[in-house]
Amino acid sequence: MSDDHKQKMQAMQKAHRDKVAEAQDPDRGLVLIHTGNGKGKSSSAFGVIVRALGWKKTVGVVQFIKGSWITGERQFFQRLGGIDWHTMGEGFTWDTQDRDRDIAAATAAFAKACEMMESGNYDLIVLDEINIALRYQYLTPEQVLEGLQRRAGRTSVILTGRDAPQLLCDYADLVTEMTEVKHPYQAGIKAQRGVDF
Amino acid sequence: MSDDHKQKMQAMQKAHRDKVAEAQDPDRGLVLIHTGNGKGKSSSAFGVIVRALGWKKTVGVVQFIKGSWITGERQFFQRLGGIDWHTMGEGFTWDTQDRDRDIAAATAAFAKACEMMESGNYDLIVLDEINIALRYQYLTPEQVLEGLQRRAGRTSVILTGRDAPQLLCDYADLVTEMTEVKHPYQAGIKAQRGVDF
Repeated sequence: MSDDHKQKMQAMQKAHRDKVAEAQDPDRGLVLIHTGNGKGKSSSAFGVIVRALGWKKTVGVVQFIKGSWITGERQFFQRLGGIDWHTMGEGFTWDTQDRDRDIAAATAAFAKACEMMESGNYDLIVLDEINIALRYQYLTPEQVLEGLQRRAGRTSVILTGRDAPQLLCDYADLVTEMTEVKHPYQAGIKAQRGVDF
Repeated sequence: MSDDHKQKMQAMQKAHRDKVAEAQDPDRGLVLIHTGNGKGKSSSAFGVIVRALGWKKTVGVVQFIKGSWITGERQFFQRLGGIDWHTMGEGFTWDTQDRDRDIAAATAAFAKACEMMESGNYDLIVLDEINIALRYQYLTPEQVLEGLQRRAGRTSVILTGRDAPQLLCDYADLVTEMTEVKHPYQAGIKAQRGVDF
C-alpha cells in the first residue's frame, strides 16, 4: 500500500470516526427541516422554541415572511421577550414587481441568520419560511448550506416551509414532512386567528 | 310527494344548509388531529397555543402522558401562567402491570377534558397524546367522539399522538400526518432536551 493511499485511508477513517463521535454527542446542534404541504411546519418550530425556553436555552428567530403580516406567534414572543427575533423588513413584499428589492431583503435577512448561526450565542435558531425564499430563488441552496455548515457546534437550526431543496434535505439530520390527509371543509374555512397564524 | 317524504327532504336540506353555514363561520371551533410517526405532533400543538395566546385567546391543555415526565413545554407554560394545564397524575404509568390504575387515570383526565370542552370557557384545548391512551384502549373512540360533539361551539380542539382512530379522523375538520422522511443518524442521536421534549 503506498504512503499516499495509506494517508487517504487514514483520513477517511478519521472522517468516519468523527462522524460517529459527532452523532453520539448529545449536545451537538442538529439541523431539522419541516416541509410538506400540510399544516404544522412553522407551528411545530414555535413549539420547539417553547421547549427550548422551558429548559432555559437561548433562542433566535429569523422570519422570511412579509414583515407587515401580524402573527400570533410574533405578538406572543415579543410580549414575552428574551428571544432574538427578526422579521424581514416591511419592504419585503413577495410576488411584487420589485424582485430586486425582495432579493435584497432576503439576502439581508439571511446575512443576519448567518451572523447568529456563527456567533455561538444560540442553542436554537429558527429560519421560518426560508424554504419559500429558496423557492422564489431569492436565496440559493448552496448559500444556505454554507451558512449551516459554518454554524457553531452547539447551535440547532430549524428550517421551515414547503418545497425544501434536496441539497438541504441531504445535509439535514432530520426531515419531517407534514401532509394534509384531510381537509373536507377547507373551501369553507378561512384561516383562523390563533390557529393558522 | 308524500308529506312524510317532503318533511324528510326539508330536514336534509336544513342539515346541509347548517353544515355550509357552520363551515363558513370564521369563529367556529375546529377539531384538528396531528398524527403519524414523525416529529412535530405535540410541538405544533404547542406552537398553535403560542399563536392563540398571541391573540389573547384562552387555552387549556390536558396531557395524557406520564405525569412525572418533565418536559420543556410544561416548565415553560407553568412559569408563564395563564393556561389551564392538566397533566395526568404520577400514578399514570403506561405499560405497567397495573392496567386498572392506568384506565382510571386516563378516564379521570378525559373527564376533566370533557368538562373543559363543554364549559365554553376556552378558545383552544389541546388533548396531548390522547391518541396513545386510545391506542392502549384506556379510552374508546366513541367516548372521545361524544366529548368532542358536546364541546362549546367556539372551542377548537387539537388531538395529538400517532395512530389516531379512523372514527375521530372522519369527524375532524383537519387531519395532518407528520412523516419522518429522513433520520440518518437517528441511532446515534439521543432525544435532546429543548428539541424533543
